[in-house]
Amino acid sequence: MNPMELYEKVAAQGESVRLLKTKKASKEEIDAAVKELLALKLDYKTLTGEEYKLGSSPTNIAPVSTDGPAVVEDGGDYVDPWTVQTSNAKGVDYDKLIVRFGSSKIDQELIDRIERVIGQRAHQFLRRGIFFSHRDMNQILDAFETKKSFYLYTGRGPSSEAMHVGHLIPFIFTKWLQDVFDVPLIVQLTDDEKYLWKDLTPEQAYKYAVENAKDIIACGFDVNKTFIFSDLDYMGQSSGFYRNVVKIQKHVTFNQVKGIFGFGDSDCIGKISFPAIQAAPSFSTSFPQIFNGQKDIQCLIPCAIDQDPYFRMTRDVAPRIGYPKPALLHSTFFPALQGAQTKMSASDPNSSIFLTDTPKQIKTKVRYKFLCDSVGKINKHAFSGVDVSYMYLSFFLEDDEKLEKIKQDYSSGKLLTGELKKSLIETLQPLIATHQERRKQVTDEIVKQFMTPRKLAYDF
Amino acid sequence: MNPMELYEKVAAQGESVRLLKTKKASKEEIDAAVKELLALKLDYKTLTGEEYKLGSSPTNIAPVSTDGPAVVEDGGDYVDPWTVQTSNAKGVDYDKLIVRFGSSKIDQELIDRIERVIGQRAHQFLRRGIFFSHRDMNQILDAFETKKSFYLYTGRGPSSEAMHVGHLIPFIFTKWLQDVFDVPLIVQLTDDEKYLWKDLTPEQAYKYAVENAKDIIACGFDVNKTFIFSDLDYMGQSSGFYRNVVKIQKHVTFNQVKGIFGFGDSDCIGKISFPAIQAAPSFSTSFPQIFNGQKDIQCLIPCAIDQDPYFRMTRDVAPRIGYPKPALLHSTFFPALQGAQTKMSASDPNSSIFLTDTPKQIKTKVRYKFLCDSVGKINKHAFSGVDVSYMYLSFFLEDDEKLEKIKQDYSSGKLLTGELKKSLIETLQPLIATHQERRKQVTDEIVKQFMTPRKLAYDF
Repeated sequence: MNPMELYEKVAAQGESVRLLKTKKASKEEIDAAVKELLALKLDYKTLTGEEYKLGSSPTNIAPVSTDGPAVVEDGGDYVDPWTVQTSNAKGVDYDKLIVRFGSSKIDQELIDRIERVIGQRAHQFLRRGIFFSHRDMNQILDAFETKKSFYLYTGRGPSSEAMHVGHLIPFIFTKWLQDVFDVPLIVQLTDDEKYLWKDLTPEQAYKYAVENAKDIIACGFDVNKTFIFSDLDYMGQSSGFYRNVVKIQKHVTFNQVKGIFGFGDSDCIGKISFPAIQAAPSFSTSFPQIFNGQKDIQCLIPCAIDQDPYFRMTRDVAPRIGYPKPALLHSTFFPALQGAQTKMSASDPNSSIFLTDTPKQIKTKVRYKFLCDSVGKINKHAFSGVDVSYMYLSFFLEDDEKLEKIKQDYSSGKLLTGELKKSLIETLQPLIATHQERRKQVTDEIVKQFMTPRKLAYDF
Repeated sequence: MNPMELYEKVAAQGESVRLLKTKKASKEEIDAAVKELLALKLDYKTLTGEEYKLGSSPTNIAPVSTDGPAVVEDGGDYVDPWTVQTSNAKGVDYDKLIVRFGSSKIDQELIDRIERVIGQRAHQFLRRGIFFSHRDMNQILDAFETKKSFYLYTGRGPSSEAMHVGHLIPFIFTKWLQDVFDVPLIVQLTDDEKYLWKDLTPEQAYKYAVENAKDIIACGFDVNKTFIFSDLDYMGQSSGFYRNVVKIQKHVTFNQVKGIFGFGDSDCIGKISFPAIQAAPSFSTSFPQIFNGQKDIQCLIPCAIDQDPYFRMTRDVAPRIGYPKPALLHSTFFPALQGAQTKMSASDPNSSIFLTDTPKQIKTKVRYKFLCDSVGKINKHAFSGVDVSYMYLSFFLEDDEKLEKIKQDYSSGKLLTGELKKSLIETLQPLIATHQERRKQVTDEIVKQFMTPRKLAYDF
């Protein structure tokens, strides 16, 4: 067992003790659990040379990655498009990430400018620092102010049918962006990537893409303004996509993808060339049916920060093949129920709230699976705090005042964990129920409409 | 100057001396040329430590390749899909190549079986050892005998508009195969490859593909039985092609393409993943419009032996993705006018007879540019002889008796080089003129028909 695993085991045991106390379990049961906890803490000290302390995980951990050497690894944080890991219970240090990735912080000045330009309040994800970093967002605002067009591009890797609430973050935000800017939206489903990386057939990966498209459509996108595509399908339907893929592939060497993504000599050539496929939708000529062959329409990409390596590569290539660099808006990672150290995994049913969960499952998961800080401490920036329930509320509770009150009361000890969790349950249950209701309306016919290459409601 | 370059310079000077003698030039002129020849021979001895000897080039030459380490390099022969070089004036040692590549020789027994199965004489390229090697040709004959279908696949990398007579070899032979077996034919034009390897825009490479298609069509193919495609176009037109490309890319590692093709870390990811694109047409599901989704139709690939690395890779992958291995028929290389050491290059106008040459240009090139063995020695296997004029005759003179008489007379000294060349001129002039006449008939509309994805005149 490595330090991080042991750290997690101690944390989980501590949680068990708290639960037993909450449930008013027998003294024997509680004592046994405490004894086990103390033993684990001793193991921890032996292994790490440090005292166990909740919220302060081991300082020396080896990043676990099956994809080769880390490119962004510093102070225990490890971030690439397939692995996000940190030794810090508060989650990844996003300020450091901005410095290392060379992006820009979304500061109050930018948020103010956005609000001025769009004439309305910024989305809660911006106000609360969930989208915290950007590249060239001021160019996009300049374009909007001078009535120059741009388009939105985001995506998802369909690794399973099951999507969790965290997967909605980029789509909820993208929907808002599309509403306020009124521009075309492209959604790429990288079924080819999932086929390459996972033990899946292309048919399975494609099926997941279609199922995931339903959840995306259920976020409320307008079919006249949105094109959703599967790579496996669209590559064979477009006169522009493959040409751009090859152009990008000519301008990126193996050395470069090795450095950016950590690929090695034993990786398949599909993985090695895949970054060009995620890069290509950043260029408007990949969609001649929408942009009428125009090559200078800039692209704005809202995505989680772990996808940035693809677009750093894309921005490097863009001027060399005569295209504008895409602009970006980066979000933080969505924390797993068990803590902010890792990104959630759709393959672990207990790691998150799924879009298919029943109200009862939501209640049970929030009550028994959410890591919480019994002391009730909340970090100044909610999203980087250690209490997962509060973090979730900061994502999904739209009412600013209510959120602020919860924060105050919870910090002061006035509000107990159980009550905090109740607020979260009451926020998530209707959110998921509404999503499920909307998704039911999404027929195969509607999916087909979204996924058919066609002109959108914009003239180029 | 490296040993091979110097060797070629000595050979060229020797040829000049012979030409001067033939032309009955003045004694002064001849003496000067001989003096120059002797000086070059001395240089040669200094550089290589060996006496210059026509037909026996330096034993220690460094293969010249911009694509990384050689994979097939032995006794001075260097063969990969982009470079063919040998230190042997008789050309590449094809028997050795069969052993090294692990293919099978096309022996008399196989030729006899082909003739029995098709009920007619084998093509001169088979009888004369120009197609000399194969993989699984007996499987194809078994299939044909049991009325099981198969299809033909060949291709061309459109690096320029100019094609030379050597480029026709696979197409002349493929035309014959299609006539005798009556099966669908697929022709791939790898404009994406040429874009990746050369200093070309995708538009230029695509234009070359279309121009080359005209020369291919001029070989007499039936539009109802033949599909010609550009990769840049067809990738965006097919629901099957990209799926197969990704399947192949998942099953080939960088280590493998490094070993097979000599790619290095500084090669672009487009080159690294390209082999999958040349492999994919070997599988019938890449052409759902023709084969109706059937995945077990075997493929027979007639090609020059230097393309075999692609198909060794393809055959390795095939069973792992549930497809039959393609069968192959390999041709020797077509010799350059200056000798059999190298493949011709379309970028050197003096290295071959081009399909656009006038009768006068043909005459001049054959007379003054063809390397010939003044002693009139001809190797038993014509194609591996050192006299380029005779080699060309063995490719293009259909009349077996006439060819045999030329061989006898030339070997015995009865026929002089000038007369041999005259025969070649008389063979090439009408061949090229007919080709030019046919090519003129190939309108843009006809090219479009051949290059449109569609059902062919076969039911699957």
